[in-house]
Amino acid sequence: MSLIEDLKEVPLYIKINPIDNVAIVVNSGGLPEGTVFACGLELKEHVPQGHKVALTDLEQDGEILRYGEVIGYAAHTITKGSWIDESLVRMPTPPDLDELSIGNKVPKPLPPLEGYTFEGFRNTDGSAATKNILGISTSVQCVAGVLDYAVKRIKEEILPQYPNVEDVVALNHNYGCGVAIDAPEAIVPIRTLQNLATHPNFGGEIMVVGLGCEKLAPEKLIPDGDAATIVVLQEQRGFHQMVEKIMKEAEEQLKRLNSRKRVTCPISDLIVGMQCGGSDAFSGVTANPAVGYAADLLVRAGATVLFSEVTEVRDGIHLLTPRAVNEEVGRKLIQEMKWYDHYLDLGEVDRSANTTPGNKRGGLANIVEKALGSIAKSGSSAIVGVLSPGEKAKEKGLIYAATPASDFVCGTLQLASGIHVQVFTTGRGTPYGLAMAPVIKVGTRNALAEQWHDLIDVNAGQIATGEATIEEVGWEIFRMIIEVASGRKKTWAEHWGLHNALCLFNPAPVT
Amino acid sequence: MSLIEDLKEVPLYIKINPIDNVAIVVNSGGLPEGTVFACGLELKEHVPQGHKVALTDLEQDGEILRYGEVIGYAAHTITKGSWIDESLVRMPTPPDLDELSIGNKVPKPLPPLEGYTFEGFRNTDGSAATKNILGISTSVQCVAGVLDYAVKRIKEEILPQYPNVEDVVALNHNYGCGVAIDAPEAIVPIRTLQNLATHPNFGGEIMVVGLGCEKLAPEKLIPDGDAATIVVLQEQRGFHQMVEKIMKEAEEQLKRLNSRKRVTCPISDLIVGMQCGGSDAFSGVTANPAVGYAADLLVRAGATVLFSEVTEVRDGIHLLTPRAVNEEVGRKLIQEMKWYDHYLDLGEVDRSANTTPGNKRGGLANIVEKALGSIAKSGSSAIVGVLSPGEKAKEKGLIYAATPASDFVCGTLQLASGIHVQVFTTGRGTPYGLAMAPVIKVGTRNALAEQWHDLIDVNAGQIATGEATIEEVGWEIFRMIIEVASGRKKTWAEHWGLHNALCLFNPAPVT
Repeated sequence: MSLIEDLKEVPLYIKINPIDNVAIVVNSGGLPEGTVFACGLELKEHVPQGHKVALTDLEQDGEILRYGEVIGYAAHTITKGSWIDESLVRMPTPPDLDELSIGNKVPKPLPPLEGYTFEGFRNTDGSAATKNILGISTSVQCVAGVLDYAVKRIKEEILPQYPNVEDVVALNHNYGCGVAIDAPEAIVPIRTLQNLATHPNFGGEIMVVGLGCEKLAPEKLIPDGDAATIVVLQEQRGFHQMVEKIMKEAEEQLKRLNSRKRVTCPISDLIVGMQCGGSDAFSGVTANPAVGYAADLLVRAGATVLFSEVTEVRDGIHLLTPRAVNEEVGRKLIQEMKWYDHYLDLGEVDRSANTTPGNKRGGLANIVEKALGSIAKSGSSAIVGVLSPGEKAKEKGLIYAATPASDFVCGTLQLASGIHVQVFTTGRGTPYGLAMAPVIKVGTRNALAEQWHDLIDVNAGQIATGEATIEEVGWEIFRMIIEVASGRKKTWAEHWGLHNALCLFNPAPVT
Repeated sequence: MSLIEDLKEVPLYIKINPIDNVAIVVNSGGLPEGTVFACGLELKEHVPQGHKVALTDLEQDGEILRYGEVIGYAAHTITKGSWIDESLVRMPTPPDLDELSIGNKVPKPLPPLEGYTFEGFRNTDGSAATKNILGISTSVQCVAGVLDYAVKRIKEEILPQYPNVEDVVALNHNYGCGVAIDAPEAIVPIRTLQNLATHPNFGGEIMVVGLGCEKLAPEKLIPDGDAATIVVLQEQRGFHQMVEKIMKEAEEQLKRLNSRKRVTCPISDLIVGMQCGGSDAFSGVTANPAVGYAADLLVRAGATVLFSEVTEVRDGIHLLTPRAVNEEVGRKLIQEMKWYDHYLDLGEVDRSANTTPGNKRGGLANIVEKALGSIAKSGSSAIVGVLSPGEKAKEKGLIYAATPASDFVCGTLQLASGIHVQVFTTGRGTPYGLAMAPVIKVGTRNALAEQWHDLIDVNAGQIATGEATIEEVGWEIFRMIIEVASGRKKTWAEHWGLHNALCLFNPAPVT
């Protein structure tokens, strides 16, 4: 029997904080009634994998503590060794946004990490890139059919002549017309499209295909003074000429992009996004802390790290505002929370709408527990900046980029913020990918890594079974970021060509 | 000189209603200052094509009348023969929804139209189809990358063996998770996806690819008691098995679909959607009235006709509620207007957010003028039913299907309502198409039909130049609907394989 098989036989639970009165069961398939742990705790009933067991007797309305925080109150008396199913956890109110401490526990800078570089592309504006892609933006969905047709032909007929260019990506989306473009919140999708069009992986080449009568004129996607190619379909004589025109303009850009070569770049040029999707109770124990460790390594090496997902930090916001580097950053963090509270209010829901059936099957009782696990991705650095949805990252260090938690919406917004690589943790499993930047998928459980052997890039499940430490997996993620950013290693999603479509966040009405 | 060229030389304007005090200029390129029309009217300045000229002197705040309705008030004194630019038109308030007459002018049924049929597919539930498509629904966007990969292989490796099946369509979308699925308005996207999954063109075969942890469980897309195939990615051992499983299940459905043959069906089996996009001042004069005439022909032949676009009927609602066949239909029509007013209110905009720069360049001063032209698509029949966004059409006859005016959102919702064919009018021009049903594009101007010779299916521009009547073009559209529905004729969008992605209307928040 191997060590790993042996470990599976031993009943294990994970208690995160010394004051916790619950722990989660590690073993695949859960553990049966009567199981006795090394500490002497005996299970009163079957507890599924990732679900919580009471470490002490809990009174009705008593605090249920995980991550050293109150994740809820006992719906009735719970005896030691019982399964704490989600129905037994009454959700606490969220932290009061007007009563938060700001900047009172700003972490000291960690020691600089030197000697690491990656092989990237250098753009004329000074930014770096991890891919060499021709990106073709669109100002409205109307053009998507024609552009898809043209891109297929470009890939088949032209791209092979320009071997240094890695891909041609059409930035199709649902915005641009049939929308209230002057609504106060329209700034969000417009800014997102502007920042996507100038993503560093497009090498400074800007190309926009527009229709001609849309609300979002193609020019609005182009920064003042920047050279750009615009193809307006209503100015062409029919379909054939549209396709020919797009292909011709694309080839001009491909010629220029083809001259790009990878050069050695400091890690401080990198912008890395952290995201989770399909979370389970292990997310906050294995994958997210390991990603948080990698985030600290990146920050130490001078890089920019984004973490996101408003509804998944809302209940842990009292742990984040003390880390804000100054009052302004703390205030903006709170403002983003308030904005989202109001946004959900308008739809007659609150942050509890976040958790999924899969989260619950995976052991997460509610959004409080999910959030406490989610913010582990941020590591332990000071928060030096806050971005509204789709804003471009400017500072180096750890930044909170406010986005919805929806995987594809968050992914799109982090791309707009300029990420070069995304690290995505998953417990239940998703084959998620992005076309514009590589996505490294980190699984939370050994079983997932085994089952999805050709989709999960890093297995953080070993942390739960004691086969690896958080630090070791953190370093593995850090090194893989460098390999992937350098084009030396492909993620599974890249290997299979898997990617999700762009999905804009449009909090304003459609018309 | 041909008749057409000759006509181009004659200065022409179109006055729609005898009481109108404005008319629009027909000639391509507009007409210069000093132009004298046959009636003696002389232009005081250049007036662009499709733009309005004052037929009489107008006082400041005087009513500007087009379609026999007030489209606005003069911002200042306007002299006869002047160009009435949009800046001169002050918008009126919209009709008061609490002061509308219902059912007081219900049109008498037009004489039945007999002797027309189409060659369609007969489904076991009694419905008919105009296409024989394998539709693969999805319960969440996470699966899109894997499904796209599988569909590409199905099309290349399997579909050719089943020549009676015309296409394989992946119903990818942005919904399913990361959304407030219990929000009051979540019913809209959920109902839409349910009704798309069972579109008649899929021949009663239901297949759903899901992830496994999403909020919108795949089962929720399947009507109670219906047979369906579900593939859950989280139950598969890795990417390869996911793809194999989807391909295997798809082949089972392809086998059954391949046995379908076209049979003669009455026109009463058809559901036809009417939509416009990229409208200009000719839309309400040429294409939309011709489409309205075709709508009347369809209704006379027993078919179902949908017209839509709330913000484009809102200002003409006082012309529609009198046509409601009964109080209930009238009330539901008003309720849909109120719902949308409120929805726009929440986003701090109103129906004036509808018009586009292209509309305005095309001569439409505001949403009132646009709406009066838009509702011409409804023809002259009684309105027998009203659908909330995404509801399935049940009645025969003319139905108002409430949708946003956004082309791709309206198209998606009309598909959910069950349309077999869509007729789409355009003045500025859009290469729009749908994957699930053919789209017949009707151009409003000769110049567009000439310029986009390989995209515009019917040229209604001839109506403006007097080369064809509304009735003649109406019949042409009616006959083309039958040809296209029968698979004997392909629309240009079908010919090129152009289609827009599904775009769900989600008035509820994302999380």
